[in-house]
Amino acid sequence: MGSKNLGIDERLFDHIVGTAEDMPFYTLLGVSISAVGPGYAELSVTTRRDHANPLGTVHGGLLLTMADGAMGNAIRSLGMIGVTVDCSTAMISPTPFGEKIVAQGRVLKAGRNMIFAESKVFAGEKLLADTRGTFYKTSDIDYRNQG
Amino acid sequence: MGSKNLGIDERLFDHIVGTAEDMPFYTLLGVSISAVGPGYAELSVTTRRDHANPLGTVHGGLLLTMADGAMGNAIRSLGMIGVTVDCSTAMISPTPFGEKIVAQGRVLKAGRNMIFAESKVFAGEKLLADTRGTFYKTSDIDYRNQG
Amino acid sequence: MGSKNLGIDERLFDHIVGTAEDMPFYTLLGVSISAVGPGYAELSVTTRRDHANPLGTVHGGLLLTMADGAMGNAIRSLGMIGVTVDCSTAMISPTPFGEKIVAQGRVLKAGRNMIFAESKVFAGEKLLADTRGTFYKTSDIDYRNQG
Amino acid sequence: MGSKNLGIDERLFDHIVGTAEDMPFYTLLGVSISAVGPGYAELSVTTRRDHANPLGTVHGGLLLTMADGAMGNAIRSLGMIGVTVDCSTAMISPTPFGEKIVAQGRVLKAGRNMIFAESKVFAGEKLLADTRGTFYKTSDIDYRNQG
Repeated sequence: MGSKNLGIDERLFDHIVGTAEDMPFYTLLGVSISAVGPGYAELSVTTRRDHANPLGTVHGGLLLTMADGAMGNAIRSLGMIGVTVDCSTAMISPTPFGEKIVAQGRVLKAGRNMIFAESKVFAGEKLLADTRGTFYKTSDIDYRNQG
Repeated sequence: MGSKNLGIDERLFDHIVGTAEDMPFYTLLGVSISAVGPGYAELSVTTRRDHANPLGTVHGGLLLTMADGAMGNAIRSLGMIGVTVDCSTAMISPTPFGEKIVAQGRVLKAGRNMIFAESKVFAGEKLLADTRGTFYKTSDIDYRNQG
Repeated sequence: MGSKNLGIDERLFDHIVGTAEDMPFYTLLGVSISAVGPGYAELSVTTRRDHANPLGTVHGGLLLTMADGAMGNAIRSLGMIGVTVDCSTAMISPTPFGEKIVAQGRVLKAGRNMIFAESKVFAGEKLLADTRGTFYKTSDIDYRNQG
Repeated sequence: MGSKNLGIDERLFDHIVGTAEDMPFYTLLGVSISAVGPGYAELSVTTRRDHANPLGTVHGGLLLTMADGAMGNAIRSLGMIGVTVDCSTAMISPTPFGEKIVAQGRVLKAGRNMIFAESKVFAGEKLLADTRGTFYKTSDIDYRNQG
């Protein structure tokens, strides 16, 4: 429970965490935001039986969603909004049930128009998925004048 | 409702549709299998408010999940099971709410070990996402002796 | 020899073919542009011993280069210049020596900022590589007032 | 000149460097292997005018080739041969002429059949390209009985 601020403006942190908590798709999947730092964000989920694929392991779609979301929030940590243009994932290990899964998103470069990021999804020390994402910067987040 | 058989063995078709209907993650997301043919499969969903991302459009994770699943089922239509190794998606247009979205998966080549597939996700005529996927063949489906 | 115009403005066609013929990297590799149509371009090469990788087949880098170039020229056929942002390739079959290899590039969608394309590389009927590329539109080609 | 051994068996190192030095495609492009360590390899090139694309910068194909090769050699450093199945690259910054470019390849996971790797291409400190690659393991390198 609770999300850690690893060093960004407190108003921006509150904005990002609030947005994630209100997000219907995360609620549906049980995904929450566990940490945000400069150019970095972490999403977490405890895998459930209703995340299953036909092979009886966790559906890759859950990991793809977390990877995409972790990168999107890592971009938000820089005060920007980026929409996903491209998302490429290697599925490295099968994902077990009932375990805490963490997606770490990192911005590699935030250019004027294009933002490049990566995400690694872990179960403990075990690397489950490795993602590279490209985003188009649409706007800045106006967090300074909120609330 | 109902899934179309576009030309595969009826027992294999029943196996694939039955497996998809029993699949917890599809049930959670509202995704169903709408058609299966030789080297081809189609998943459908009507987008809902609980598929939303923070920008107020449908979360890309839903499309990534459908693309992955459409390819996986296209592989099943050939009587094989493949696990996703690599999945790369271009997000071409934002996805609206309350619309029927269809992911079409096609096998490009089924080799001895590696299977290559692609998926295109549409809302009507509009291309939303284009995916390339690589799969590792783990086994054949033993559908002939079922039931 | 010679490049086919499959239906674009003759001045634009001459501009694209001339640019490709003057291009040092294509000359080094022996790559030429064999056809250009609306949203479409084809690059060709006859594979040589100096394209070899350590396994004694053609180095994947040649196919990656042709795929990237075929998409770039397909974008040019629409009168636009796009720089590669993302390029994702499945290597489907090994590439033999001494054969004519053709990369077909197609634009999937040309948006205001982002352009999405795909490329398939063939040796005859055999699919060697399948690529998805994302490009950022930098400018239009000013071919109407040229020489 | 010369290639650094960062900690692998000397016979394997000699085998890898010898193979790279004899490789026609590297010779054509001016690419050499500058370092090999456990699960790691580095390719280098000084960019030349004949690496140019139509925009007057270095053709992305050179970077795609180096990224692919750096990952392939990183796999060789573990005594294995892998063929490229999938290669996905973000082109982050344009590549200048006359500069030393280094591609660093790293193995993320070497499974029984599939090997996952990544590569980052730099000009000095500047990240030019970020690649994720998937490889199929075909054999082990029999370096112990060579020479």
